[in-house]
Amino acid sequence: MKNIVVLGSTGSIGRQTLDIVRAFPDELRVVGLSAWSNRDLLMQQAKEFWPQMVCCESLGEDLPHGCRPVHDLTEMVNDPRVDLVMLAVVGAVGLLPALETLRAGKALALANKEPVVMAGELLTTTAAKHHAPILPVDSEPSAIWQCLHGEDAAKSVRRIIITASGGAFRNSPLSKLAAMTPEEALKHPTWTMGKKITIDSATLMNKAFEVIESHWLFNMPWDRIDAVIHPQSVIHSVVEFEDGSLKAQMGPPDMRFPIQHALFYPRRLPNPNLQTLDLLKVGSLTFEALDPNRYPCFTLGLETAKKGGTYPAVLNAANEEAVSLFLKKEIGFLDIQKFVTLAVERHAPSKTSGLEDILEADAWARRTVRQAVKGA
Amino acid sequence: MKNIVVLGSTGSIGRQTLDIVRAFPDELRVVGLSAWSNRDLLMQQAKEFWPQMVCCESLGEDLPHGCRPVHDLTEMVNDPRVDLVMLAVVGAVGLLPALETLRAGKALALANKEPVVMAGELLTTTAAKHHAPILPVDSEPSAIWQCLHGEDAAKSVRRIIITASGGAFRNSPLSKLAAMTPEEALKHPTWTMGKKITIDSATLMNKAFEVIESHWLFNMPWDRIDAVIHPQSVIHSVVEFEDGSLKAQMGPPDMRFPIQHALFYPRRLPNPNLQTLDLLKVGSLTFEALDPNRYPCFTLGLETAKKGGTYPAVLNAANEEAVSLFLKKEIGFLDIQKFVTLAVERHAPSKTSGLEDILEADAWARRTVRQAVKGA
Repeated sequence: MKNIVVLGSTGSIGRQTLDIVRAFPDELRVVGLSAWSNRDLLMQQAKEFWPQMVCCESLGEDLPHGCRPVHDLTEMVNDPRVDLVMLAVVGAVGLLPALETLRAGKALALANKEPVVMAGELLTTTAAKHHAPILPVDSEPSAIWQCLHGEDAAKSVRRIIITASGGAFRNSPLSKLAAMTPEEALKHPTWTMGKKITIDSATLMNKAFEVIESHWLFNMPWDRIDAVIHPQSVIHSVVEFEDGSLKAQMGPPDMRFPIQHALFYPRRLPNPNLQTLDLLKVGSLTFEALDPNRYPCFTLGLETAKKGGTYPAVLNAANEEAVSLFLKKEIGFLDIQKFVTLAVERHAPSKTSGLEDILEADAWARRTVRQAVKGA
Repeated sequence: MKNIVVLGSTGSIGRQTLDIVRAFPDELRVVGLSAWSNRDLLMQQAKEFWPQMVCCESLGEDLPHGCRPVHDLTEMVNDPRVDLVMLAVVGAVGLLPALETLRAGKALALANKEPVVMAGELLTTTAAKHHAPILPVDSEPSAIWQCLHGEDAAKSVRRIIITASGGAFRNSPLSKLAAMTPEEALKHPTWTMGKKITIDSATLMNKAFEVIESHWLFNMPWDRIDAVIHPQSVIHSVVEFEDGSLKAQMGPPDMRFPIQHALFYPRRLPNPNLQTLDLLKVGSLTFEALDPNRYPCFTLGLETAKKGGTYPAVLNAANEEAVSLFLKKEIGFLDIQKFVTLAVERHAPSKTSGLEDILEADAWARRTVRQAVKGA
């Protein structure tokens, strides 16, 4: 029996994680749930899974018996009963609980990629120091991880090839991108996901983030990570080995597969609720080069990440802020790239890049984008 | 430094094995070479690699200094210097050296699939008894093996999916198959291979053999091995795991990749002579159901193998004989299936299926096919 907490349990990944728990009542026990603001769903979840701890901004008095309100995620992840933390929150808010989980030496199932983007080095050195495993949940890093099972990741890998669906606007005329609405950008061709990541998929910032995530999680140099458009989202990523052999991990576009892999690794248990992939129905798998003119955020994301220091934190925070403003219709689709570029260009990097510097750069970038939008 | 012998060094796999040896002079040393009848090429190879032992039907007096003629493959594989035997002969003649290699507790790199077809149980139990690894070289079993690295093969695998190019006649009208010549059948769409295996690819008997090989090498029940037509020969096979995740091994259609993997496993060394796969150039990967009307040998092969006992030996021997007669233009393309069926139907299985029974069934099947062809 593995005791897990789900941080961000009312979001897309959180709900799908609980779906896996439902399928394996003898394997997984939920000891903690947290949500940002969806109190009603959190209460429903608490009544179904009966965790010992619940955390939410505004908790009422009607918690189930034995279910204790916790005001701090730090307290929750440090509870001695906890074996694994599923980090399924959205954005930079996941950084502190991620660090706390690793410092406690516990397994971190990482669906929340923004902390790795902003503080990849800090997270991976903390994980190494405390012998705490980081288990990728995002489908592409999970694919790479699965392809590396049983291989010598340090010596045998020549290249990682991350696949990208191309998002909502893969086939839209470039001239129409400026006028695209949030509703249009949220129509992802293959995956059903949360809003933030779906917009990041339309800009392909999400793919830059996955390259950054792979750089840190698999200790892979930048020039040995490629991205390729694969519209069917069946091959979730590919590893090319030094001897020229390649391995690809495949599956239906359903996040419950990588969630389950992170929860049970190294075991692979049958889950009758999940559909199998029928290669005959798939028919054809195609690959296209990634067009930098269509996806300037991809280049912007990578170039900024390579600068290192506090730049990646600025990249992530400016992007979070810009995506949020786009979803509120305060800026246009192409303004996302514009305002992230502005923040990156104006950033005066700090000499150190410890946690304090990262958090400060994060706050500065958000302010900078908000003020620039107001002034625009 | 690994000391290897190459049995069948003048054939397609043998020559490609020596190509790998050429690329790694500090890693591999050839201590023995054997060939069936191509004495001239064997002498050339002996002069280049200077092995301690050479075996051929008709050896002359001009062996290089230090190079000893050996009259028996058994003697060669038992030489204490030998670490690994590359079995690259064609057909049932590989069975005895395969068994001898395993009995000596040495690694058997297995390109020659017929011994596994005719005596899969005997080979795998011998390997287990003597703790001798069988390293698959055939591209599809190699792909499965690579997908299983680091996985719990006994508990985690739901299904193996073997890919097939479909051979020379995938798109030919069924009405024209009867008149197809050896020249036409030898035009394989994606792989350059020896004659026997290229004909087996046109009938798809080769794919039945790979299912049989996978059944034995990976201890996989018959009903959990599927075959699918994949005309591009880029995905060499797929493993579907119990949790619904799939892994595929990919690479250009070049046997030197799986040969090298078997020679160096678990290491993956860069070989500048091998081309890398460019997914963007590949463009599209497709999958089609295998049509049993086009490929009756596939069904025949599997049904016969499942009967067990001495039936698989009859299947293999009758097929070897029929393919040989087809190549000599003594029978037509569709007669291959006809004469294999005849041998299988006439076979009176022996009660036991030890080595003697297998060899006897093999000889009986060859005689039966030859006599039936003469009488036809």
